[in-house]
Amino acid sequence: MTEHSLWRFSRALHRAINERQLKDLTNLIDDNVEWAVYGPIDMFPFLGARRGKPAVMEVCKQVADNVRVHRFERESVLLGLDSGASIMRFSLTALDSNRPISLRLAQFAQFRAGILTSMRVVIDTFDLVEQALGHPLHLPRIA
Amino acid sequence: MTEHSLWRFSRALHRAINERQLKDLTNLIDDNVEWAVYGPIDMFPFLGARRGKPAVMEVCKQVADNVRVHRFERESVLLGLDSGASIMRFSLTALDSNRPISLRLAQFAQFRAGILTSMRVVIDTFDLVEQALGHPLHLPRIA
Repeated sequence: MTEHSLWRFSRALHRAINERQLKDLTNLIDDNVEWAVYGPIDMFPFLGARRGKPAVMEVCKQVADNVRVHRFERESVLLGLDSGASIMRFSLTALDSNRPISLRLAQFAQFRAGILTSMRVVIDTFDLVEQALGHPLHLPRIA
Repeated sequence: MTEHSLWRFSRALHRAINERQLKDLTNLIDDNVEWAVYGPIDMFPFLGARRGKPAVMEVCKQVADNVRVHRFERESVLLGLDSGASIMRFSLTALDSNRPISLRLAQFAQFRAGILTSMRVVIDTFDLVEQALGHPLHLPRIA
């Protein structure tokens, strides 16, 4: 049984971010890949939408410049033939501030012949912002 | 071909929220359902974790008291035999303020014999908070 494309891609992405070994990742990304990580791009310029392999490789390098991944846990996983989705919880360090950050996100990946053609990521961004700032933001109660 | 459990559940949830018709939803939720919608519960008390059918029905009523859904779009969908995940974009009105809110979230649902046993939802919460407040929050640039 062949390894699912999502696991191979996740390992390559992890290596790119933590070890700056980009070769495996480059080989697993389609030239016309669509990439969207929703979040406040004013604070985190490496979030947002990208199109095409060069733009996605560049943004992965920016992520590598900003975070180190210590641990991750898959809380939910759903695998299709050429696609995979998971909810993940990451333990990171923000390299500029040396702050520990615990990040929850959902990723949806689409592959063609093992190569990533689309990635969409939804992040619990308010929690991320508070941790990156290092203090809670005051919020009124709505309900 | 039978309709996927996710579609039946989504329709019942939509009816519960917009029309306060709770019966279909009640019949599709397991007595011991696990439910987690990650987000700032100080601002939105109907977010957070719940366990068991009565708690989940109660929280769905609270959502119905606070929002009206106008439109939704599924941006990504992945269906398993007894599970389903999707990235969705909702157009809502926050009923207390009458503010329009555009919300992106990822949901992961697990079913047993068509009945919901687990739901996890990751929301782009910073975007939600800014819209609910009605103004942007100033953020420093991190990277």
